Amino acid sequence: NAAAMIPHVDSWLERLGWTGNFDAAAAGRLPEGRRGREFSDSEIYKLLEGMAWEIGRTGDPALEARLGEIVRRVSAAQESDGYLNTMFGRPGQRSRYADLEWGHELYCYGHLIQAAVARARTVGLDDELVRVAVRAADHVCATFGPDGDQRVCGHPEIEVALAELYRVTGERRYLDQARAFVERRGHGVLGEIDFGPQYFQDHIPVREATVLDGHAVRALYLAAGAVDVAIETGDDDLLEAVRRQTLRTLARRTYLTGGMGAHHEGESFGADFELPPDRSYSETCAGIASVMLNHRLVMQTADARHADAVERTLYNIVATSPAADGRGFYYTNVLQQRVEGQLPSQTEPSARAQSAARPPFFAVSCCPTNLTRTFASLGAYLATHDDAGVQLHQYAPATIRAGVTAGDVELRVATRYPHDGRVEVSVTRPAPGPWTLTMRVPSWAVGATVTAEGRTRAVEPGYIEAPGPQAVGDVVVLDLPVAPRFTWADPRVDAVRGQVAVERGPVVHALESTDLGADVATARVRTDVAPSDDDGVVRVRVATAQTDDADWPYSRAPREPQAGDERLVPLVPYHSWAERGPSTMRIWMPVTDR
Amino acid sequence: NAAAMIPHVDSWLERLGWTGNFDAAAAGRLPEGRRGREFSDSEIYKLLEGMAWEIGRTGDPALEARLGEIVRRVSAAQESDGYLNTMFGRPGQRSRYADLEWGHELYCYGHLIQAAVARARTVGLDDELVRVAVRAADHVCATFGPDGDQRVCGHPEIEVALAELYRVTGERRYLDQARAFVERRGHGVLGEIDFGPQYFQDHIPVREATVLDGHAVRALYLAAGAVDVAIETGDDDLLEAVRRQTLRTLARRTYLTGGMGAHHEGESFGADFELPPDRSYSETCAGIASVMLNHRLVMQTADARHADAVERTLYNIVATSPAADGRGFYYTNVLQQRVEGQLPSQTEPSARAQSAARPPFFAVSCCPTNLTRTFASLGAYLATHDDAGVQLHQYAPATIRAGVTAGDVELRVATRYPHDGRVEVSVTRPAPGPWTLTMRVPSWAVGATVTAEGRTRAVEPGYIEAPGPQAVGDVVVLDLPVAPRFTWADPRVDAVRGQVAVERGPVVHALESTDLGADVATARVRTDVAPSDDDGVVRVRVATAQTDDADWPYSRAPREPQAGDERLVPLVPYHSWAERGPSTMRIWMPVTDR
Repeated sequence: NAAAMIPHVDSWLERLGWTGNFDAAAAGRLPEGRRGREFSDSEIYKLLEGMAWEIGRTGDPALEARLGEIVRRVSAAQESDGYLNTMFGRPGQRSRYADLEWGHELYCYGHLIQAAVARARTVGLDDELVRVAVRAADHVCATFGPDGDQRVCGHPEIEVALAELYRVTGERRYLDQARAFVERRGHGVLGEIDFGPQYFQDHIPVREATVLDGHAVRALYLAAGAVDVAIETGDDDLLEAVRRQTLRTLARRTYLTGGMGAHHEGESFGADFELPPDRSYSETCAGIASVMLNHRLVMQTADARHADAVERTLYNIVATSPAADGRGFYYTNVLQQRVEGQLPSQTEPSARAQSAARPPFFAVSCCPTNLTRTFASLGAYLATHDDAGVQLHQYAPATIRAGVTAGDVELRVATRYPHDGRVEVSVTRPAPGPWTLTMRVPSWAVGATVTAEGRTRAVEPGYIEAPGPQAVGDVVVLDLPVAPRFTWADPRVDAVRGQVAVERGPVVHALESTDLGADVATARVRTDVAPSDDDGVVRVRVATAQTDDADWPYSRAPREPQAGDERLVPLVPYHSWAERGPSTMRIWMPVTDR
Repeated sequence: NAAAMIPHVDSWLERLGWTGNFDAAAAGRLPEGRRGREFSDSEIYKLLEGMAWEIGRTGDPALEARLGEIVRRVSAAQESDGYLNTMFGRPGQRSRYADLEWGHELYCYGHLIQAAVARARTVGLDDELVRVAVRAADHVCATFGPDGDQRVCGHPEIEVALAELYRVTGERRYLDQARAFVERRGHGVLGEIDFGPQYFQDHIPVREATVLDGHAVRALYLAAGAVDVAIETGDDDLLEAVRRQTLRTLARRTYLTGGMGAHHEGESFGADFELPPDRSYSETCAGIASVMLNHRLVMQTADARHADAVERTLYNIVATSPAADGRGFYYTNVLQQRVEGQLPSQTEPSARAQSAARPPFFAVSCCPTNLTRTFASLGAYLATHDDAGVQLHQYAPATIRAGVTAGDVELRVATRYPHDGRVEVSVTRPAPGPWTLTMRVPSWAVGATVTAEGRTRAVEPGYIEAPGPQAVGDVVVLDLPVAPRFTWADPRVDAVRGQVAVERGPVVHALESTDLGADVATARVRTDVAPSDDDGVVRVRVATAQTDDADWPYSRAPREPQAGDERLVPLVPYHSWAERGPSTMRIWMPVTDR
């Protein structure tokens, strides 16, 4: 992230002139010199957030210097009353908040504030970025407060940001404003748009909705903000409403990859069980937003389903979008690629829905900057602690320090997960007394065991508890069987009927034409032969079957393809597909016997 | 059509002010007073075409008066050099042809000219609408001729219109201009748009393409125009290119209904075999355009596959769009409705993709007016004649007069097709000598027979010949077995794997929740029990099966729904679905044994 993705994104934002918009604003050269879409300011803020978390982790002085430079340029463009946006409010531009439906002004503040929160949490409140964001937030509270404009932003994001700003500053007015934005929405406060009010969740109040609907990223950001507001205000009804919406969305509107959003049109959730693999939109940012939402819910409800969703989405959406070198990205994450794509331009930004390969940047480029901030803050998802002990939600090599009732403790997590399923937890600094180690057993980990104090026992999916290791040398071992397995979809997912997927641990796998030596449309999988696992390389038995064209593709009897060769074919982890050049790909593969 | 649809559409066009735009233009009140989208002029022209064909059929004086009134208003808005468009060219509007990508100016002329062609073919060239269109066409030739603007219109339509204007006027310059537009396209002559150049077929020249691609209506109109140009200029290569594109599109990119266009995004064809039933766009206008294209091809190639496509599309797209009362319309024609829709507003135009029920009008309202001109000219698709005899392509009660080598002949076609499959052809005025009656046996009509001169013989799908009836009282009988049948899709259509449809003759049927008494998602069809046919009412044996929600809809083994009751359930012809109120619906139904 720090070595490749952040500099890559930074240089594209400079090259496209989106960062330069702030200089043009400060110099009074707008609107003529403005570049990029109406939400381009937010890309700079998301990059700043990524830098801030990265600096917090590493203290990199060069990155600190670069952050400082960008913050100065942003700060110079801020107006005296706190307003800050390069697209609106100047002579020749539309007036401030003239287009809340599409203008993204409050959305941009939201990302500015989240960047400042990252800064506050890593270097403290005495920071120029924090000051800029606080001025903006105060301007928002003054403009959209109880006596002000009673509308909301077309793109939620300010809600979660203001709630987090409240957490780091303790200033209640930010929380009140966040709550007001959550509560106002859903009463038709925004103007009519072609996509209808559900596009920006203005069709039903948050606390009355039963499922996430409309534009997926908008719905998920709003839900994350609503959870924060509910937690901080003790609003159990609101929390329960969002919790139920999220569980129903996981049960009926989520791809195997954790991806959300089945429609390209309106970038929206589809109907229940409408999950076409080839037309999946499954935007990277929706994956990030789902991680944000489910992480908040697991912290509050201790319901492992949300942590399972975080894990699935991290390994199969967040990890899928960027190329191995961090210099290319998927905006959409399709589960089936029917046509070999062409390599994207390396010099021009691509259309956002490009999906046959990972382009270096997009004209609408929310996802790359969103990834920088997500990768830089991944550590936050691993563990939590309370008085009784430490809870491990995700598994990665880590050192964890926590204060529990029994005293301070420092843990070491050693694992090659998800390559294998063995997770060893030992203490590098023991606590003076007993404490509880809580670990998540993912829903797929049938046959998991935990070994503590020399005893091994079988454990069921969900959170399980073990006595925390007491002495240096003591170790608690969680063993999660990651052996590859076939996975079937609910029969109501019409689009993948008669098809099967393969997962290994939390990692969804895919068949690529590169490995099959033929278009993956010809593949039929034998499900009576279990997938093999050769040090992480998964193979399935596949027959290739040719179907000849008919004049008309519908007939009185099922047309059976002519069975061809049958052999073991390797799959790839979905997150690394298309790394070897254009290919056709599918996660869901038809089975031989249907 | 004349009693309901034309007055309905006419009154909406007046009410929305789209017809009034011409008055505003003539009075110099534009641009302030302009209503509707940039292509709204074309709706008035399509209505005029519908009226013109209807008048040609019936001679209705009231309709003639109304047509005259609208033509006068249109004519008053035409400028002295022939330019005619209410959206461009005035002070305060963008200049003429400033936005060929999206401006639709030539597209609007295309529909104006097609209306004039309908007039020329029914009342002759001495007509005010013809004069308006000729002035516009001359302006187009002057502006976009060899020495003029070398671009094309973002939306094809002018090509087919100019070629037809050449046919009725004999003026070669119109044909030359049509050919120029066809040949220029595909060389990147239009500006960049988000959807990419294939959206308006500017990515590859027509004669080099191998399949129809991009926006479906645009691709089909362009292909129809290219066929006309090819025929009139004797360009066999061009004809062959479009013929191959069309056949591949029928074999790989067409829904069972004949519908085309699998993507809502960009209203475009999908990849080969990408035909999701729930996300089908399958626009009514694309169906109309496919009828136009395939009708031209069958006339030129005598290949029954094109006539089969015309029939299928007429019964399952063109007949599906309008409500039984002619006062509501589908814009998109989905093959599966997952959620019961709400009844649309009867007073406000709907968003165009509304599909749960038939709204009275749309904000983008190309389809209703397109239907008026299609229904008014249906007769044209029934029959053709040449020296040797008469060819029947479609079957409906009709009287047909034709001059063949043997002399003039008048036929009577008596049939209740497609209710039953018996088609009786007799002569009401015999020809002096022998002639050949050619009739199409649709591809689904396995077991068809023809009886002529007292002998019955089995006939195969395709065009078959019989001696034309010689004397009054002689009759040729074609018997097409319309018994309902199960239909399966090519195994490459992933989206309907393990599912079956039911057709009766050319009519695709559908299951509605109204008949099932439950959401159609619960239905499983027994394919070992043939569909029954009770005087046209088709029933299949259906089990309803409930699937309970899991926390996560993917599992290690296929989840089998709990089998419920099994009974005979009636299907409805797809073209009459949703006539009894909101319902869920599916054409493709999962079978019990998979």
